[in-house]
Amino acid sequence: MQLPQEELKARVAAFQKDLQKSALEAALIIQRLDLYYFTGTTYLQYLIVPAAGEPVALARQEVPEPIPWRIAYIARSNELAAFLREIVGPEGQIGLELDVLPVNHYLRLAQALPAYRLADASPIIRRRRAVKTAWEVGVLREAAEKDLAVWTAVPELLTQARTDLELAAGIEALARRQGHQGLLKFRAFNEDIYFNSVLAGPAGAWAGPWDTPLSGRGVSPTFPQGASGAPLRPGEPILIDYGGCYQGYILDQTRLFALGHLPQEFRRLYDAARQIQDAVVAAARPGVACGRLYEIAANLAAEAGLADLFMGPKRVPYIGHGVGLELDEWPVLAKGSTVSLEPGMVFALEPKFVLPGRGAVGLENCFVVTDDGVERLTLATDELIIV
Amino acid sequence: MQLPQEELKARVAAFQKDLQKSALEAALIIQRLDLYYFTGTTYLQYLIVPAAGEPVALARQEVPEPIPWRIAYIARSNELAAFLREIVGPEGQIGLELDVLPVNHYLRLAQALPAYRLADASPIIRRRRAVKTAWEVGVLREAAEKDLAVWTAVPELLTQARTDLELAAGIEALARRQGHQGLLKFRAFNEDIYFNSVLAGPAGAWAGPWDTPLSGRGVSPTFPQGASGAPLRPGEPILIDYGGCYQGYILDQTRLFALGHLPQEFRRLYDAARQIQDAVVAAARPGVACGRLYEIAANLAAEAGLADLFMGPKRVPYIGHGVGLELDEWPVLAKGSTVSLEPGMVFALEPKFVLPGRGAVGLENCFVVTDDGVERLTLATDELIIV
Repeated sequence: MQLPQEELKARVAAFQKDLQKSALEAALIIQRLDLYYFTGTTYLQYLIVPAAGEPVALARQEVPEPIPWRIAYIARSNELAAFLREIVGPEGQIGLELDVLPVNHYLRLAQALPAYRLADASPIIRRRRAVKTAWEVGVLREAAEKDLAVWTAVPELLTQARTDLELAAGIEALARRQGHQGLLKFRAFNEDIYFNSVLAGPAGAWAGPWDTPLSGRGVSPTFPQGASGAPLRPGEPILIDYGGCYQGYILDQTRLFALGHLPQEFRRLYDAARQIQDAVVAAARPGVACGRLYEIAANLAAEAGLADLFMGPKRVPYIGHGVGLELDEWPVLAKGSTVSLEPGMVFALEPKFVLPGRGAVGLENCFVVTDDGVERLTLATDELIIV
Repeated sequence: MQLPQEELKARVAAFQKDLQKSALEAALIIQRLDLYYFTGTTYLQYLIVPAAGEPVALARQEVPEPIPWRIAYIARSNELAAFLREIVGPEGQIGLELDVLPVNHYLRLAQALPAYRLADASPIIRRRRAVKTAWEVGVLREAAEKDLAVWTAVPELLTQARTDLELAAGIEALARRQGHQGLLKFRAFNEDIYFNSVLAGPAGAWAGPWDTPLSGRGVSPTFPQGASGAPLRPGEPILIDYGGCYQGYILDQTRLFALGHLPQEFRRLYDAARQIQDAVVAAARPGVACGRLYEIAANLAAEAGLADLFMGPKRVPYIGHGVGLELDEWPVLAKGSTVSLEPGMVFALEPKFVLPGRGAVGLENCFVVTDDGVERLTLATDELIIV
């Protein structure tokens, strides 16, 4: 699906307003998904966005998607300096994606661009991308329909699978057949995600190496995440944390299943998770600080006597995160965050509990912030499903 | 599978010899797979490897895998300076993974460690990892068995699939059920890989945004790689480029299939690709420069009058690459490379041709360099398979 040219112009215009409020004369966009966000293509080397005036895209090869600005074809990266001189002037402060750009790449740029001060544009980019446009929300709504088809098929897949890995493989194949991208992007260094984690029984209680509430054992110590090949057993929580990704946009969802029955102690935790979701949803609206939403959730967990079990073995200090082209977008519904919700922000809310050594329960849905509250994007039922 | 402690000690001892030949007093390992390579776990924040003496691992959480050295638990990253003082001394040159470390991470370290000069250790690390140990080759041999099971099933999957995406989903589900990790790691910035690309007909001729011979359209412009949902048609080349990944180790393979028949013009190109493989394999042995192997391949393509079709629409100037924990390891069998093969190096060799607008053919196998040649690791037949 091609990005509308008007959409691209509006995104860059909004970003240029952000730049005008900053100390940056221009941003130099290099990371592939940031390039896609502003141009609708990943076939570029650089996009120079001046605080005012027309951007210029630099490419080393033919660009298949139309973009609303000039594309200059360059043979070598060191032609960049000439374009900066033309667009920004002989000197100035240029913003780069310093949160993701590797040091060697940065050092080469610093050497090639001695006239410019290189600063960090990543907070400005991430704040801009946190507020989804109507077009983006439309794409996410389409993704939600496809994800619903996956969730609807899970009970049947569960009856056929003997292990967590067989169930994972079945879910993944179904998602891929209807156009799931397969690859999910994480922005943070050293963090990785595969698009589907089936956490059955004790695997749900396993603490992974990442700052996430749940992890799973995975198939190898090189990537301790998701299914491991363990048998699926009756009476254990089977938690599925699945990232749907269609047209590049991710919706993060978690649902709880069980074979035959699920003991009351898990059901009680699951009810608590749903109550937390309801309370956070009721409080979420433009202007509310993300830290306040975390507090509401943590307080409810504490009042229920479940503080020690809340948000996994590491008790990670957040209850949700932005989603979009990347799985770890802004805002983060984190302890102490003073960032306020704004209309258009889209976040996954994931209250989860872990019974040590026994398993994990919880749920996860995605919401878009509206003018006076939030609207749920994900469509599958929240009910615990016993197969 | 746990890494043997003796294996870890031998890896670090070899790396320390490398450090002693360099200007570095120590290496500070941060990237997750480098940490895994030297310690067998990904649960660490840092590994300090002095050029001589015992390494120290710093962790923020319990480490599930045993490691042969001291693990110090730290609450904050800024405790690092004290450990460097203890292990390296009050000053010196420290090597970091500057090829992958994000700038902001680096700037924080530079501020926290003002007494040390921070340099690039990534070439030393990548050279060390390029030479596989016997243990690693053993893991790759096991992966080859699992991959053989996947390739053996492809003809049957092909008869069931109507589109490239259905075929891809079937291959991926089969691989996952037998323990494929799903996630494949690429070291280079801005490059990504999903573990399986089905390129049918014209999609094989599509030039992607990456420096790879083939790409495919993918399901969205956010990730133009692999299957797109296009129908599978008789008489077109169906090229499958699949990265098997078991126990974290990747074997890269490509095979050619067709439904019903395949026109002579494609068969001729495929024969040429096989001849190039044979010639490179015959020449590959310790001491041969990688650039020389590229030359042999490129010359053969030119002699056959196929230079314009060789290595895809971009005519990428390489014919193979190292594989291991990452898909883009060293050595690279690239034009002009003076790097010589060494016993233990493992590489994927991938001679490929593209008929513009029509499709791609070629094959890819992995080889380990022995004392006097190379030994093939991948097991599936090289024959074109008509279903």
